[in-house]
Amino acid sequence: MRVWVGFLLSSVLAVPMAAQTKTADVAILALMDKSAADWNRGDIESFATCYKDSPDILFIGRTISRGYAQMMETYRQNYGSPEKMGTLTYSQLEVHPLDEHFATMTGHFHLERSADGGGNQDGYFLVVFENTKVGWKIIEDDSTILRK
Amino acid sequence: MRVWVGFLLSSVLAVPMAAQTKTADVAILALMDKSAADWNRGDIESFATCYKDSPDILFIGRTISRGYAQMMETYRQNYGSPEKMGTLTYSQLEVHPLDEHFATMTGHFHLERSADGGGNQDGYFLVVFENTKVGWKIIEDDSTILRK
Repeated sequence: MRVWVGFLLSSVLAVPMAAQTKTADVAILALMDKSAADWNRGDIESFATCYKDSPDILFIGRTISRGYAQMMETYRQNYGSPEKMGTLTYSQLEVHPLDEHFATMTGHFHLERSADGGGNQDGYFLVVFENTKVGWKIIEDDSTILRK
Repeated sequence: MRVWVGFLLSSVLAVPMAAQTKTADVAILALMDKSAADWNRGDIESFATCYKDSPDILFIGRTISRGYAQMMETYRQNYGSPEKMGTLTYSQLEVHPLDEHFATMTGHFHLERSADGGGNQDGYFLVVFENTKVGWKIIEDDSTILRK
């Protein structure tokens, strides 16, 4: 029995880093697809599940804020109606795996909105993902809206 | 001899995570002190050694650029004189160790400059550090200059 356990452990440990990072890429890009679809359906609660539900997560923009609750409050304040939410698209997404537990991602976001909704928004971002027990989740997000 | 090697390895591996992250904090904050002092002496080449000398490092701001050489070119273009460099101060620095190989840091930068130098600049940032063979180095930097 001991031999089998050893064999299984060896098999797990033998998964090459390339395969692990490939899995991270696929999982994280799928999460981003889901988050944009959630946003564009007007479902901020579901959108926000791409973030880790923790009091320690960080947002960096025009200030630094901390925690899932604060993030939700800010999202609801700034994007509290379908007009203000508009249509979100990501582009230039690149996942940069650090190791099996952490990865970063860079990319660009575009928010298409009516003048009533506040007009379009654009910016580049850097986010840090943690491979949590419930999947890859964003723990730090620096998404600054560019001023034209 | 083999016993001693084993003993030494055990000692290294037995260093608790708290001690490792404490070391990372101290090393990274010392690096930031040095980088600001280098900048304020007008020495961009020395300042830039807080970044990993790699074609893969990433800068996120009004666009995404890649590599040490591109970074140096951008720094020289934007901060090519003592007036344009001004006086750099960091504040609200927080190191967030991920594991023994990676850490992130958030903070605020302020550049005090004359009108001739281009005026003051301010912004928050998120950077990712790697614990390389030559010490902790920045591999990703999202430092967006805030428009007033």
